[in-house]
Amino acid sequence: MQTETLPAMKPIGFVRAPYTATSEVPKGCGTTHTAEGVLEILPEYQEGLKDIEGFSHLFVIWVFHQSEKCELVGTPPTDDRPHGVFATRSPYRPNPIALTVVELISREGSRLHVRGVDMLEGTPILDIKPYLSSVPAEKLKRGWLAEAEKRKSP
Amino acid sequence: MQTETLPAMKPIGFVRAPYTATSEVPKGCGTTHTAEGVLEILPEYQEGLKDIEGFSHLFVIWVFHQSEKCELVGTPPTDDRPHGVFATRSPYRPNPIALTVVELISREGSRLHVRGVDMLEGTPILDIKPYLSSVPAEKLKRGWLAEAEKRKSP
Repeated sequence: MQTETLPAMKPIGFVRAPYTATSEVPKGCGTTHTAEGVLEILPEYQEGLKDIEGFSHLFVIWVFHQSEKCELVGTPPTDDRPHGVFATRSPYRPNPIALTVVELISREGSRLHVRGVDMLEGTPILDIKPYLSSVPAEKLKRGWLAEAEKRKSP
Repeated sequence: MQTETLPAMKPIGFVRAPYTATSEVPKGCGTTHTAEGVLEILPEYQEGLKDIEGFSHLFVIWVFHQSEKCELVGTPPTDDRPHGVFATRSPYRPNPIALTVVELISREGSRLHVRGVDMLEGTPILDIKPYLSSVPAEKLKRGWLAEAEKRKSP
């Protein structure tokens, strides 16, 4: 099993976003992503968007296409202490896969207008899924991030 | 951009789950996944788990490794009407990527004991990320799924 080959991934579309460099994407404690952008789905996949308009929020799975290294432990912009990559959203991952929750504003054919983009212009999209349910706030523990926030706003 | 090659994906670990066939995984309206399982991370990535214990919930990105087709429009087990693949969690996607939110029970070295698995035994894991925030319930619209649920429980 360990040696099996995984299927090759292909873009289903690309992001149109206001950011062209990672330095422009808001980062750090308490950042909220309100930038609008467009998920431009390739014409051959447009049929797969049927009924997506009914959902208020979507998961977007995309590729950190400018990330060229992997760092198993690193210090994120939200803290001054190092954490494991699987406990952060760092782009320097074994597989450069990213996940963003966006709000769906409207659909025009194969173009989804969304709010909450934190991707760069031209980012390849791997998948879109409906956001179906949330973990209740009172059940959510946010580990080092909650501690880092507490230290910064005493 | 459209023609760029995406990086090859590799397993960071494998799921130990009580299910060996997709027919055993609970499906349909109102299903809640409470099965326990283990995310067994490969030793070379164990360092990347540092501080993950602080989070109550994790996103697990994994591969539908038994899925061999793509169906842009299909009828999910939760409904009797067809919907676009990007508006469902169908395994028959352009890229066979799956996303599950699990509750982290405990960590033992490179083994994460979790609740809420809906994967098969031996499923390759691509990535793990901390679940950081939820969309407030009152802001969430669940499209065709809410309608299907309403039709089934009048």
